[in-house]
Amino acid sequence: MSLITRTVAAPVVPTSGALRPLGLDEVRITGGFWQDRQQVNGEATLPHIEHWLEKEGWLANFDRVAAGLTASEGRRGREFSDSEIYKYLEAVAWEIGRLGDSGSDRRNALEARFRAVVDRVAAAQDADGYLNTRFGHAGQESRWTQLEWGHELYCLGHLFQAAVARERTAPGADDGLLSIARRAADLIVESFGEHGIQSVCGHPEVEVGLAELGRVTGEQSYIDLAELFVERRGHQTLKDIEYGRAYFQDDVPVRDATVLRGHAVRANYLAAGALDIAVEKSDSGLLDALKAQWQRTVDRRTYVTGGQGSHHQDEAFGEDWELPSDRAYSETCAGIASIMFSWRLLLEENDVRYADLIERTLFNVVATSPSAEGTAFFYANTLHQRTPGEAGSPDEISPRASSSVRAPWFEVSCCPPNVARTFASLAAYVATVDDTGLQLHQYAPATIDTQLGGGGGRLGGRLAVEVETDYPRSGRIVVRVVEAPSDEVSLSLRVPSWATGATLAVGGGATEAGGSTEAGGSAETVSPGYATVTRVFSAGDVLELDLPMRPRFTRPDSRIDAIRGSVAVERGPEVFSLESAGLAGVGSGEEEFSRIEIDDTVEPVESHVDGRLTVTLRVAPEATSEWPYESELNAASDAEAFTAELLPYHAWGNRGPSTMRIWIPTQRR
Amino acid sequence: MSLITRTVAAPVVPTSGALRPLGLDEVRITGGFWQDRQQVNGEATLPHIEHWLEKEGWLANFDRVAAGLTASEGRRGREFSDSEIYKYLEAVAWEIGRLGDSGSDRRNALEARFRAVVDRVAAAQDADGYLNTRFGHAGQESRWTQLEWGHELYCLGHLFQAAVARERTAPGADDGLLSIARRAADLIVESFGEHGIQSVCGHPEVEVGLAELGRVTGEQSYIDLAELFVERRGHQTLKDIEYGRAYFQDDVPVRDATVLRGHAVRANYLAAGALDIAVEKSDSGLLDALKAQWQRTVDRRTYVTGGQGSHHQDEAFGEDWELPSDRAYSETCAGIASIMFSWRLLLEENDVRYADLIERTLFNVVATSPSAEGTAFFYANTLHQRTPGEAGSPDEISPRASSSVRAPWFEVSCCPPNVARTFASLAAYVATVDDTGLQLHQYAPATIDTQLGGGGGRLGGRLAVEVETDYPRSGRIVVRVVEAPSDEVSLSLRVPSWATGATLAVGGGATEAGGSTEAGGSAETVSPGYATVTRVFSAGDVLELDLPMRPRFTRPDSRIDAIRGSVAVERGPEVFSLESAGLAGVGSGEEEFSRIEIDDTVEPVESHVDGRLTVTLRVAPEATSEWPYESELNAASDAEAFTAELLPYHAWGNRGPSTMRIWIPTQRR
Repeated sequence: MSLITRTVAAPVVPTSGALRPLGLDEVRITGGFWQDRQQVNGEATLPHIEHWLEKEGWLANFDRVAAGLTASEGRRGREFSDSEIYKYLEAVAWEIGRLGDSGSDRRNALEARFRAVVDRVAAAQDADGYLNTRFGHAGQESRWTQLEWGHELYCLGHLFQAAVARERTAPGADDGLLSIARRAADLIVESFGEHGIQSVCGHPEVEVGLAELGRVTGEQSYIDLAELFVERRGHQTLKDIEYGRAYFQDDVPVRDATVLRGHAVRANYLAAGALDIAVEKSDSGLLDALKAQWQRTVDRRTYVTGGQGSHHQDEAFGEDWELPSDRAYSETCAGIASIMFSWRLLLEENDVRYADLIERTLFNVVATSPSAEGTAFFYANTLHQRTPGEAGSPDEISPRASSSVRAPWFEVSCCPPNVARTFASLAAYVATVDDTGLQLHQYAPATIDTQLGGGGGRLGGRLAVEVETDYPRSGRIVVRVVEAPSDEVSLSLRVPSWATGATLAVGGGATEAGGSTEAGGSAETVSPGYATVTRVFSAGDVLELDLPMRPRFTRPDSRIDAIRGSVAVERGPEVFSLESAGLAGVGSGEEEFSRIEIDDTVEPVESHVDGRLTVTLRVAPEATSEWPYESELNAASDAEAFTAELLPYHAWGNRGPSTMRIWIPTQRR
Repeated sequence: MSLITRTVAAPVVPTSGALRPLGLDEVRITGGFWQDRQQVNGEATLPHIEHWLEKEGWLANFDRVAAGLTASEGRRGREFSDSEIYKYLEAVAWEIGRLGDSGSDRRNALEARFRAVVDRVAAAQDADGYLNTRFGHAGQESRWTQLEWGHELYCLGHLFQAAVARERTAPGADDGLLSIARRAADLIVESFGEHGIQSVCGHPEVEVGLAELGRVTGEQSYIDLAELFVERRGHQTLKDIEYGRAYFQDDVPVRDATVLRGHAVRANYLAAGALDIAVEKSDSGLLDALKAQWQRTVDRRTYVTGGQGSHHQDEAFGEDWELPSDRAYSETCAGIASIMFSWRLLLEENDVRYADLIERTLFNVVATSPSAEGTAFFYANTLHQRTPGEAGSPDEISPRASSSVRAPWFEVSCCPPNVARTFASLAAYVATVDDTGLQLHQYAPATIDTQLGGGGGRLGGRLAVEVETDYPRSGRIVVRVVEAPSDEVSLSLRVPSWATGATLAVGGGATEAGGSTEAGGSAETVSPGYATVTRVFSAGDVLELDLPMRPRFTRPDSRIDAIRGSVAVERGPEVFSLESAGLAGVGSGEEEFSRIEIDDTVEPVESHVDGRLTVTLRVAPEATSEWPYESELNAASDAEAFTAELLPYHAWGNRGPSTMRIWIPTQRR
């Protein structure tokens, strides 16, 4: 079944797979948690990013090349700064698509900004298609000579993704971005193809960009080159480095690897690109290898937040079970890259585990990065902040190291535009269709309106539903049918793995006086996975899913040394955190905070403040020893218990410098 | 009281202090654990180091400068490679002193090697005293322009320490090293003095070198410059770097800091140099600050091994309580630097805590680094090795990252010569004298022979004792008086903090038939600290200290998250480790090893193999979940118990690639 002629305004459009994505014109988030973030993203984050791209001179680097000013002294930013412009363009393209015909003033302004940036990029492209502000011109190092650290192909991969986003949301637009991308892609097909340079880029990304560009353009040579890059990796064509070749996944061929390793963004971008190739080439061996890698990575190398990457040193995965809270790197971009990998697996396999991890990562990594205002970001997402640090300046660039305070921009500033493109395209991750009907993967107030059967399946006709919910504040999700085909259709609702005891009711659409919709039918318990109702639906039919949102203690596998003897608190998809800024008196100081224990015999309960939870804590007495390793156990704590509020982790760090922990020691020692 | 005219063949000879050091000619280690290491060091490690200094071209860098070949392309090694030659020279100087008049063939051969290397260094010194193979000549970057990373003053600090070692062990030798050092020191007095460059070196070390060179030469300007360097640091005269200025302790003035922080070697070298200045300048404010820093660092930022440094990224201390076993950096050089700091505090303050930490660090960090053969080294000393890694080649240089396998040499190869100079000078850390008598700090079979009263105190005359022990295999230490002054003398024996229940017997020197010495008198219980006997001693008098060597479980302060719910096993000064290579079948595989728990209700006992201990373990059943964070606790282990041997940590990694852990989870969850 070929879908290549169908334009879907979504980030990933495979030629085949169990599920088919829906575009931003088919799924609109109409309220709630995620719409808030999308609005902040569009109104605050995107202008903020363009401001910094100008301020830091990363956009001006293109003007310099266009003007022939290529001596490296004048250039600003790191080797990969071009990619931030491309990710920004991608974000703006999705945002234009998200706005659709609504808000035309904002849309027109964005369109103008988009074209202005594309024009500056276009002016810097060489006659033969080469495009990079750091290499390849008079006074610069030669092109393709620094494959380990040069990021030339990496930057182009992001260019391709931007062009793909634009073509899918504004097909045939005359801004020229797709043509820029095609010329660059044609050049690298020649330069790195079968008879070209037999190596790969130190930072995977071009694979996923080429695969998607091939899907949009129908140009097989792009997909073939992506396949070559995937197959070449792991054969030590890159020079060895201090961190070892696992850093850029050049240690083991992709199809032989058993787990993600090395730099966590690189690892996930590569896995996403390799999966695109496995799908396009129907390579079941490669697919199976990637599925196994995903599973072991999730089982042994992923934080409870969904975050990945345990090392600051090389921004890398640790070994199995090496998951320190206090040195969690859990880079925002690694979370986004993990979603890219999981989403592709979900489309291919239709397995709820992938959607579960996407939700976990969206709520607890991606949503954690930006400040409430959308103009400051966490690069790393620690699970345990021991010292509050100092508030930074909103005008000051930050090194990427984590603190308790978000920074407006970074020397390596991959995360802000990565968050922006993810939020702008978020509606595409909400639902999919297949030959039997519609699947709901993520819950938000939304309208979904699509034509079934475009792929030649048995179903046909318009399916439109409305989703009403204030998830994750409540676990009640109401799906109301607006229009449905006359044939039998399946509606599938994801029941997350934590939602034991969920119920689903199906009814004929009675609307109560207060305006809230009730399914009417009797509720049945549904197991984690997908709860599917198959029948002929009519307008007004209602499905009501109730997910149990009782707060819960979560305990770690005993092999995770770093958090032994501790519990986390979760509620629905949200992981909670204890923040010193939220402690009134006792426990708030750094010294006391370090001695806080939780009484895990007292269940966490809803706080009087919406969205927060209340738990029972104690501050253990201070040890008197001058050496912290003794034969005798510390005396059992007889300190007075007090209650305190936990905050969703994604909301932490918005009240000024603070200490924080997700995993809280229990009184057991 | 000025001791400046007294030559003591020891690494640190302060002008004043509570205790006075003894030289290598006064204390000789005559057998046992440490003599074994000293012999391997002299016979295997020193030739090994010189081989690699030649092989890597770091010695040849001096020849290149001497020949005017200074273009940077031809130079090999990192910015600081000169320092390895100087540390090697220092080690050889101590070794020549250690050999004394014995073994004259080896001594003569060493003397010839020493002089040959000094000649090559001398030839590279500029007319004005400047000495560096990386900076300051035609085709190189200018001198003193890269203070953050250039290491020029750092290298000179090690040159000064080498010259000091030589002058103290071979006073007035005509090899020229002292004169090389003085010319270089005179140059930097001019270049960095009161009217010179108002900054410091990115890597502290020159402070301690200048202070000691000032002591040896009586040249006050060297001590004054060291003081300037100490006082300038912390005032942000160095450029900021990604790790922050705490990395090189330029964040806070030394006298205002409350704890060691940043790069652990830098921090301890600086503290040692600052302490020299506090002593020489009678600066009690600075001294108090350093004592407080030492205490908080030991209390909150030190591993049970005595190791320091929790970060691989910046080789740095973590924050308080941030002590992950699996990412312990615990660099060998940081352990040595910590001993340098503690030893100076011990001489100044005569407080047993400093000697306790020195012993812990000697046995569990410094002794851990070299292989049994003395030709391979750990750079980092992890407390938990999750994967065995692969055996390296004895001819292959290693990046400095840790694995379970020692490497022959490193790109940054500070550790091997640092171990060598420490082992060669180790006898100097065994004992001290003061106006009342002799203090024994470290236990080894030894002869101690000194003239009391050289400092003008009330005592006078020869004091000679012999120490007999097979410590740490046994806790029995016999001190036999060979000769003593006719006046009352105090003999003080350290009772380590772990040795609760130690006994001391004093007797008149009865010798049993079997040759073993018994004090004869009745034993009295002595508390941790120093057990002192004051009386008129005669030849043949005996003190017998019995330290309880029962193996013990050690539990961590509850604030150290990384090892909560785990115990370590110690016996005397040795920390023990569980190594997969020592497990016969069950538990030895990587998967099973990760699930091992210890039954801490069964006391560890002596193994049938000397020096090992036996404990009771279980392998927990594997979790069945595909997500390692669950609401339910793992089921209690009902796996079968088995016994296994623990090895002293310093002996691990000598049986091929292996997993290992010091802290073992208990069955409590």
